[in-house]
Parts: sequence; structure tokens; C-alpha cells
Amino acid sequence: MTNANDKYAEVTLETEKIFDGKVISLQVDRVRLPNGETATREIVRHPGAVCVLALVDDKMLVVEQYRKPLGRSQVEIPAGKLDPGEEPSEAAKRELEEETGYRCGSMRPISSFYTSPGFADELLHLFFAEQLTPGQANLDEDEFLDCTALTFEQAKQYIAEGRISDAKTIAAVYAWQIYRLTGDFL
Amino acid sequence: MTNANDKYAEVTLETEKIFDGKVISLQVDRVRLPNGETATREIVRHPGAVCVLALVDDKMLVVEQYRKPLGRSQVEIPAGKLDPGEEPSEAAKRELEEETGYRCGSMRPISSFYTSPGFADELLHLFFAEQLTPGQANLDEDEFLDCTALTFEQAKQYIAEGRISDAKTIAAVYAWQIYRLTGDFL
Repeated sequence: MTNANDKYAEVTLETEKIFDGKVISLQVDRVRLPNGETATREIVRHPGAVCVLALVDDKMLVVEQYRKPLGRSQVEIPAGKLDPGEEPSEAAKRELEEETGYRCGSMRPISSFYTSPGFADELLHLFFAEQLTPGQANLDEDEFLDCTALTFEQAKQYIAEGRISDAKTIAAVYAWQIYRLTGDFL
Repeated sequence: MTNANDKYAEVTLETEKIFDGKVISLQVDRVRLPNGETATREIVRHPGAVCVLALVDDKMLVVEQYRKPLGRSQVEIPAGKLDPGEEPSEAAKRELEEETGYRCGSMRPISSFYTSPGFADELLHLFFAEQLTPGQANLDEDEFLDCTALTFEQAKQYIAEGRISDAKTIAAVYAWQIYRLTGDFL
């Protein structure tokens, strides 16, 4: 395994645009595989997003909101899409304040990850919020959610019960546990 | 916050099917919001997938493969889509053996998470492989990848360098660190 190993790169032969929406777009690429055969790849484009581990009195700020793709509500850390050209750390401050009211002095990057690299290019940036001060939430027009805060044991329980069940929030709880045990995020 | 709080449930008024592919499908739902307004929701349907934290001599098995949505290769833990009707633990055993050659006596669930609940219903099951025995990999026809194994320090380094940058592998490394520190996965 060498660095930047693209010996298995797939060459795009054709791109068919399927859909261009408010949040995502979809294309189907016909590609040439390393063995010379062709295949199709279904690719969702997404602007990227941010999410925030914010601890207040040793509790994690979470929001409960309805997730239409799942047909139910979920408890998640504050998160949102990047606006065009927006710095991830600024987006994280904006989303935290909009959804929870808390203002944040600085955002420390924990990690950035592609949520579903098999079919989507969504890159999610996870931050740790420092220097928090309370304030007034200010939700988007079509955003409905409740903010609360969970102890570590509650967060663990919520994961066990399936009330927390999304990648970013579970990654944040894992990062929090590592932070509790080591004082660092990995 | 009450359990199964769906007071913000969105009622589906109309569903438009946009695309039905090999891996994903796409629909746009028009919904009624809690305030009576309407909005659209872009929803990707996915069959679900599995991924495996497998430790051999205290090293994590990983595969490097080209990811067309990202336009580059990535190092990830073994993973793959669920076949219709397949048990996640069976799929995890199958994918581990196909991609790495290792057979696994039992698959212990670590966690299951929705990768992108804002726009997709993909549910990913993360397992810990126990009782591993080496064997011969057996890749799908259109699958090209290299298998290797990383120490914890190497995995950490790969994350810092961006060679590991997907949610499932970062979650697996976090889980591994918690396991190293506590003997359990959370």
C-alpha cells in the first residue's frame, strides 16, 4: 500500500445528470474499471456539513428532530449543511447558536469524515465547542426541534435504546469517551 | 423530551420517484410541516450495509480501494451492502472473508448507525470480528482492492493524514481506542 495509491482508479466515460435538488444532486457515471470492463456508479453530490460536540456542565447538547428519511424523530448533536463558501468552523458556530442558542468562542476540529463514500461525497466536519455562553436559539423557518443536554451515561443509554442512532452523534459520544479517559480526542 | 417524540412529524402529501438504481433510489416527498406549511424532502433509499473491526495480532484489517464519489482511493475497514433478506452478522462474515480472506467465528455488534439521516436511510452495522482464521480473499468481479493491517498508531496517523477519512472507519478506530482503554466498546 503506497500513499495516494490510485492504481485502481476508475476512468469516467460518461456522466448522466439525473437530478439537481435543494440539498443533493444525483448523477450516474459510466466508468472503465482497472480490468478494462465498464460499470456504472451512482453518485450523490452534497455540499458538506458540520456537527458539534458541545459540553455544558459536563453534559452534551443535543437536539431532537424529525428525520423524514427515517420516518421518526432522532436525538442528534447540533449539525447543519455548509453554506456556499462558508468556513466549516464558522458554519459550526452558526449552527450551534441557531439550534441551541449557545455562542462559542472557538471551534476545535475533532475529525472530518465522508459519511457514505460508496455513493456520496458528503464530508462532515466534527468540532468541539469551547468557551460556551448561553443565549437564544434562532431556528430556520422549516426547522422544528427541541434542545436538551445529556450526561455521558444518558448518551450511552440513548445509544443502547436506539434514540441516538446516527453516525455523527455516535462518533461524537465515542470521541467524548476518549476525551474523558485521555484528555484528548484520539 | 419524551420517548418516541414525534410531535414534529412531517406528513407525506406526495412522493415523486426520481430514480431507481442498482445501489440507491431517489424520491422527493412533499410534506406538511408542523406549522402547516409545506416543504420538499429529497430522500435516498439504500439497502443498508455492514462493516467490520477485525484485529489480527493487535492490528486492524483494512482495505484500500478507489471511491468514485471522492475521485480517489481511501483506506477503510472491510464493508459492504446487505443482500436482500440477509442478516447483518452473516453479511459481515461474508464481506470480511471476501475482502480479506479471514473467516470469523462470531461477529459481536458494536453499534448501528444511520450515515446521513438528513437525506438518506442507509443504516450501517459495525461489528467486532472474533475467532479469526486466515484464508483466501474472493472479490466481486467489479471490486479491486488491497488488504493490509494497521497498528493503532498507524491508524491514528492515517486519520491525521486523511488517508482514513470515512465515518465507519473513524468510528471503528474510536471504538478500538475505547476497547484498548476500558476492555469494552463504550
